[in-house]
Amino acid sequence: MKILGIDPGSHVTGYGLIEKIRGKPIHILHGEIKLSRNEILSDCLLRIHTKLIEIIQENKPQALAVEDVFYGKNIKSLIKQAQVRGVTILAGTSEGVPVFEYSPLEVKSAVVGYGRADKYQVQKMIQAILQLPAMPPTDASDALAVAVCHMNFQKEKVV
Amino acid sequence: MKILGIDPGSHVTGYGLIEKIRGKPIHILHGEIKLSRNEILSDCLLRIHTKLIEIIQENKPQALAVEDVFYGKNIKSLIKQAQVRGVTILAGTSEGVPVFEYSPLEVKSAVVGYGRADKYQVQKMIQAILQLPAMPPTDASDALAVAVCHMNFQKEKVV
Repeated sequence: MKILGIDPGSHVTGYGLIEKIRGKPIHILHGEIKLSRNEILSDCLLRIHTKLIEIIQENKPQALAVEDVFYGKNIKSLIKQAQVRGVTILAGTSEGVPVFEYSPLEVKSAVVGYGRADKYQVQKMIQAILQLPAMPPTDASDALAVAVCHMNFQKEKVV
Repeated sequence: MKILGIDPGSHVTGYGLIEKIRGKPIHILHGEIKLSRNEILSDCLLRIHTKLIEIIQENKPQALAVEDVFYGKNIKSLIKQAQVRGVTILAGTSEGVPVFEYSPLEVKSAVVGYGRADKYQVQKMIQAILQLPAMPPTDASDALAVAVCHMNFQKEKVV
């Protein structure tokens, strides 16, 4: 089973694809979609959506796992992040891939073992779990972590 | 010039299409996409996006005008509304239609004459401006109001 994890962000959206083989998560790919400062929102949303559709069509994951928005942010960032999250979910659903959501707390608990882990700990654990030669960048690590979280917990569909 | 106005909402998304003919706004169509209580988010987003793409492809508007999110809401509704807004903007951009945004204050000022007008006043004014036999429902009226606002003010592209 292939799982595409996504960490939608107001500046950077991370993605990471893993495959469950004999119960273990195997790394396939990861990356980050970075928005430039002067890029307008509508172009950002189109670029993120197009990239995700491309990854889904090429790799045909069976599930898309998305990190929930982070409520501690300022309201402008939160709204931008939620807009990105909207097109992220749409990318899965329009391609017939079921979408699941996990809170940052659930993701960290699943990967590091406790919910208040910092980004560096997530990176280190993802490198270890997926046996990668180097740590993936933070947002791609978060995305891979959501995918690993879904592999282990398999929650209900996003609501 | 045809303008499609959209009022993205956490429960109801209104849309309204007008055409500027000899400087005047002429009503073409309006409607509302209502989300049912137990519908999951991913299905909602797909349904809204599909409906908007259908309207855009059938009517070929030259501009899409979207109302900004309303910050007074509770945070859960705000995030849902922002996710809907994300797929709304994407629907325009992916079809090559430029997207413009207006705050509720700008829309009310443009249509009713002052920013603190209530929903009923917007409905009455939209009925009068577009010479409709009956008042459109509130969210469709808001959407038609955003379209009328864009016809009169033509702001810069959404950011």
